[in-house]
Amino acid sequence: MTTIPRYLLALLMPSLLCIAASADMPSPRQVILIIGDGFDDQHVTMGRNYLAGMSGTLTLDGLPFRGAVQVETLSPSGQPLYVADSANTATAIATGTITSVGRIGTDITDRDLPTIAERAIEAGLRVGLVTTSSITDATPASFLTHVSSRNCEGPEEILGSTYYGLPQPACPQDARQNDGPGSIIEQLSVSGAHVLFGGGQKFLEQITAAGEPVRSLAERNGFRVITDSEELDKLQTDQAIMGLFASENLAVRWRGTEGRIAELTETTWLNILSDYLGEAKQPEVMACEPNPEFGTTPALALMTSKALHQLSSNNPSGFFLMVESASIDKQSHKRNPCGSIGEIEQLEETLALSLAFASQHGNTLVIVTADHAQAAQILPEPSHYEDYPVPIYSPGHTARVKTPEGSVMRVNYATNNGFSEEHTGANVPLFANRTDQDSLAPFMKQRDLYGVIADFLLLKRPDERLRD
Amino acid sequence: MTTIPRYLLALLMPSLLCIAASADMPSPRQVILIIGDGFDDQHVTMGRNYLAGMSGTLTLDGLPFRGAVQVETLSPSGQPLYVADSANTATAIATGTITSVGRIGTDITDRDLPTIAERAIEAGLRVGLVTTSSITDATPASFLTHVSSRNCEGPEEILGSTYYGLPQPACPQDARQNDGPGSIIEQLSVSGAHVLFGGGQKFLEQITAAGEPVRSLAERNGFRVITDSEELDKLQTDQAIMGLFASENLAVRWRGTEGRIAELTETTWLNILSDYLGEAKQPEVMACEPNPEFGTTPALALMTSKALHQLSSNNPSGFFLMVESASIDKQSHKRNPCGSIGEIEQLEETLALSLAFASQHGNTLVIVTADHAQAAQILPEPSHYEDYPVPIYSPGHTARVKTPEGSVMRVNYATNNGFSEEHTGANVPLFANRTDQDSLAPFMKQRDLYGVIADFLLLKRPDERLRD
Repeated sequence: MTTIPRYLLALLMPSLLCIAASADMPSPRQVILIIGDGFDDQHVTMGRNYLAGMSGTLTLDGLPFRGAVQVETLSPSGQPLYVADSANTATAIATGTITSVGRIGTDITDRDLPTIAERAIEAGLRVGLVTTSSITDATPASFLTHVSSRNCEGPEEILGSTYYGLPQPACPQDARQNDGPGSIIEQLSVSGAHVLFGGGQKFLEQITAAGEPVRSLAERNGFRVITDSEELDKLQTDQAIMGLFASENLAVRWRGTEGRIAELTETTWLNILSDYLGEAKQPEVMACEPNPEFGTTPALALMTSKALHQLSSNNPSGFFLMVESASIDKQSHKRNPCGSIGEIEQLEETLALSLAFASQHGNTLVIVTADHAQAAQILPEPSHYEDYPVPIYSPGHTARVKTPEGSVMRVNYATNNGFSEEHTGANVPLFANRTDQDSLAPFMKQRDLYGVIADFLLLKRPDERLRD
Repeated sequence: MTTIPRYLLALLMPSLLCIAASADMPSPRQVILIIGDGFDDQHVTMGRNYLAGMSGTLTLDGLPFRGAVQVETLSPSGQPLYVADSANTATAIATGTITSVGRIGTDITDRDLPTIAERAIEAGLRVGLVTTSSITDATPASFLTHVSSRNCEGPEEILGSTYYGLPQPACPQDARQNDGPGSIIEQLSVSGAHVLFGGGQKFLEQITAAGEPVRSLAERNGFRVITDSEELDKLQTDQAIMGLFASENLAVRWRGTEGRIAELTETTWLNILSDYLGEAKQPEVMACEPNPEFGTTPALALMTSKALHQLSSNNPSGFFLMVESASIDKQSHKRNPCGSIGEIEQLEETLALSLAFASQHGNTLVIVTADHAQAAQILPEPSHYEDYPVPIYSPGHTARVKTPEGSVMRVNYATNNGFSEEHTGANVPLFANRTDQDSLAPFMKQRDLYGVIADFLLLKRPDERLRD
């Protein structure tokens, strides 16, 4: 289950061959950065156990370089914090600068930070962002936009929005009404990117301060805008393309049996009175099954194969492509292990595809990393304390997932009592397809990735440019 | 705080110089394997944040090789399980064979498995085991002994014992009464090891089936037995030494303020009625402080420096040394982050010392790894959902630890409701001081470490010996 499906290989082969045939052109340099959102070592192992088996190996396990990345976060006043979100982490990767939770391409003083994708565009490279979230979500946004809060996705949200009745941060100073660069979708629309694939259709119909729908702003700035994945087969490679295939985030591939997620352990009344009394009933074992809502959602690997074709065709200048498997994290927030595992399978397919591309294009650096650690933990099944004569169970939510090799993997979510789990603070893994890059060290800070990508793409960093 | 204390360096330097002076002897090969029990990426990061700061680096972060190791566990019937204990993991490392939870040097059919340390002794190398646990605990035991259960530490326990009134597994077939090899301490006493340092004095006074105290069994088999750390200064290097410096496990270096560990969040009665009502009061911030019980306990680095001197002096044949920082795990079970962090500091000092030794002895492979992942998770402080108008808190135990850089690191323990947390199932990190070993791959199975060590020490593996 870890290899790329036949239908995708068949789909991809013509473009690979076509690109290989033009081998007498100058050899461009390209970076494919795959971000598994929340893809820490617990989630990597959860994916391996399910998709390859306890003793199996994932495609990413075969990569010749593996290291760890320390995640850094600042409080708004500049104090170190030990747990991040996807906004400040993607900003660190994209800009080389640490910032605070929720910030997109801005530092803690609200200064706009130049991003690696902007540098690439300036240098004449093509840029693509592909994600299973809304294209306006924190990870893709941080590579091409600058706002003080990740909530400012559209011209409506930038002036203030609510979530379950709770006011969300706005970014009035970034609004076009106030001579700012506009919301995330507006900034993406004028970014000069060559490919933007993900969700986020709902933002296309929002109206800018100039009274124009976002869709027309994007089209006026050179994008062909598509919302139907069938149109992916009819692209012209020399035109910028914005493909948004869901209203917000894309549906995930898998779910638990009949939509089940992790559940609280049921206990008898006696156990509520005392931990030493009564009985506890663990949640029933569940399987992973296809998510009926997935429907015609394009697979991440399909979007990536199309993006690679768009970015590499007739392009002697190279490209930077960021691909995000966003819902490892989103489904971990929701305590849905099957949702995360299906998304890890999507990441694995995308990696296999990227490695096939790299094998045809010598100057390709493929990196896989996570932005931050997440809530899920694999627990013993049964508990190592099951012989004790008192009920032993997780105080949080537990899912007992039947794996294809016939065992039960127990996944625990117990970081808070709310409707959405917390991120966690471990360093995250980093994998790469090459060992010849001195800038790739076994241990790095997350912000160092900016320099790794800039070095490989021969882009000078801002401080180096100043010295010229 | 990550460098080795001056007193230890001063202590070590004479022996290093002395060894360096004998450079015209044939150059032996040696492996120092440092196992951080439960030292997964959450714990590594917890140690880094506290000891070096969010943007700091640990000594282990500077090692040129970093990879990941998949932990494998079998049920007694041979089915894959996704969470291990220290017995089956140390057995996998020591023997190259997967086994079930609780087993020491035996496979799931109770067959004794030859260990890397036994191979080394057979080949004329010296062997040392150093730990902050009892020397009979699962990790050291798995390198030199063979019993069906980790509980069978002494001649009393092998026939059956109780823990909080609950009967523990016995190993009657391994007892000397039944012509077995005896308990763990008995097998260690006849193992031929050159150095055994840790805790476990209580087992010395137990009486074997032959009516002899274990201490005299050990002495009769060539060990000088010491129980006072001051005697570490008076060792003869050509005599085997068993140094046990506490009745059971060694005391840890640090504790939380006035002995505090992670605590449950206090909530008002309204919140007990409904998650949406009432108030929650997070545990107060704590500091880490010296543990008054540590007293004259020898530091892990001190024991290791003495062990290195004993193993390397006048020894042209090389050695295998396993050093375990055992209480990262033990304190995580107890929800005591300061206990774990002090133990990580001990591991760091031991690593610095080992690297200094390796820089003087070219043929030294230093490996740091963990045996399995553990319960602790670093959570956001404050919660990323703190603005929500309902009390948000962990359902488990939380410690809010003030770090030297002035921030608060929130550590969560929420794997069960009992008195001891569960292990978790992530792959674990592996670090090494050399990149020239082909057998060290970026991704390995834990049992592959057996081959890595055997290769480096030029010991043939059992299957290779059969082919000769």
